[in-house]
Amino acid sequence: MNYLGIGVSPGNVPVYDGNNLKVIDRRVRVTELVLRCIIFGLAILGAILIGTDKQAKVIFSIEKIAKFTDMKALVFLVIANGLAAAYSLVQVLRCILSMIRGTVLFNKPLAWAIFSGDQLMAYLTLTAVAAAAQSAVFAKLGQTELQWMKICNMYGKFCNQVGEGIASSLIVSLSMIVLSAISAFSLFRLYGNSKGKGNAM
Amino acid sequence: MNYLGIGVSPGNVPVYDGNNLKVIDRRVRVTELVLRCIIFGLAILGAILIGTDKQAKVIFSIEKIAKFTDMKALVFLVIANGLAAAYSLVQVLRCILSMIRGTVLFNKPLAWAIFSGDQLMAYLTLTAVAAAAQSAVFAKLGQTELQWMKICNMYGKFCNQVGEGIASSLIVSLSMIVLSAISAFSLFRLYGNSKGKGNAM
Repeated sequence: MNYLGIGVSPGNVPVYDGNNLKVIDRRVRVTELVLRCIIFGLAILGAILIGTDKQAKVIFSIEKIAKFTDMKALVFLVIANGLAAAYSLVQVLRCILSMIRGTVLFNKPLAWAIFSGDQLMAYLTLTAVAAAAQSAVFAKLGQTELQWMKICNMYGKFCNQVGEGIASSLIVSLSMIVLSAISAFSLFRLYGNSKGKGNAM
Repeated sequence: MNYLGIGVSPGNVPVYDGNNLKVIDRRVRVTELVLRCIIFGLAILGAILIGTDKQAKVIFSIEKIAKFTDMKALVFLVIANGLAAAYSLVQVLRCILSMIRGTVLFNKPLAWAIFSGDQLMAYLTLTAVAAAAQSAVFAKLGQTELQWMKICNMYGKFCNQVGEGIASSLIVSLSMIVLSAISAFSLFRLYGNSKGKGNAM
């Protein structure tokens, strides 16, 4: 059935199922490893930046200390970053192991587990970032209609460091979003139906 | 090349690529349509609940009116719900059209467009819900460390209706998350590599 040249499979399996997919596989694996390393580093950085943030201020001879536990959203963000870092560490080890062994992911239960984990972490980190960013907006700008004062003019250094932590966490969650698309690719192509490729939309 | 019976493809394409995938296809399509209809309805409901919410209160002979525009997060949530409703309406029409025509999605650019749209809407609605929920927590509980007063004891009816709107939007975003997994399935199985199925992980 192959009159055209090399690399064409019998039946309806198209050419790119062979060599091209190997190239895609390699790129996907490298991208995955790089992203997981970035997430591991930035999640730890974000957690440290926010978790260690503290500023003392004397107001009318009373010392007040701003710390991240004053805002539940920041506590949630530190926890989410911690979970993302731990999860990424496990995944980095798995990636390295599978690279050393030279195996490709064709195990459906494992692919489902990775897909579910990545999805969960993407949505978790994004939710934490959104809640923390909303709190930060209130702290930075206040909400005059509700008589909520801005506090960043008093605790400038504290707010800046929280901002850096949120920025770091935002990159974590964006990377998790890309990763969850990659793991969706790795999972669902196992359900490929080559027969239908010629059909209309 | 088929000596075994019905539904078996030549080469390495396994049996379940035939009939089983048709059953999965039908279920996926029905689930997709139902979810998109739910999203359309609940997104409109959420936008109306929050957008029309208003409560007047007389405090020291001054009338104050609480409305959703007092909180940017609620404005963002109404916009996100509006976008989700409009997007779902377009998708519902597409689903119905493809059901009437009896066609299956094998068009990669279209699958990519649907996948990207669903992903974007899932993350957008989730972000909006998280930010609004964080604002609602401040309104409900206050933040004594920062001298932000709770306002829901003054505007109880207003807060309850916002709560209903957020609950409705939460279901919208959870449904969008399921849908984005479905569209990931529809897209990435087009990249299926049946040849590798026997390999180890």
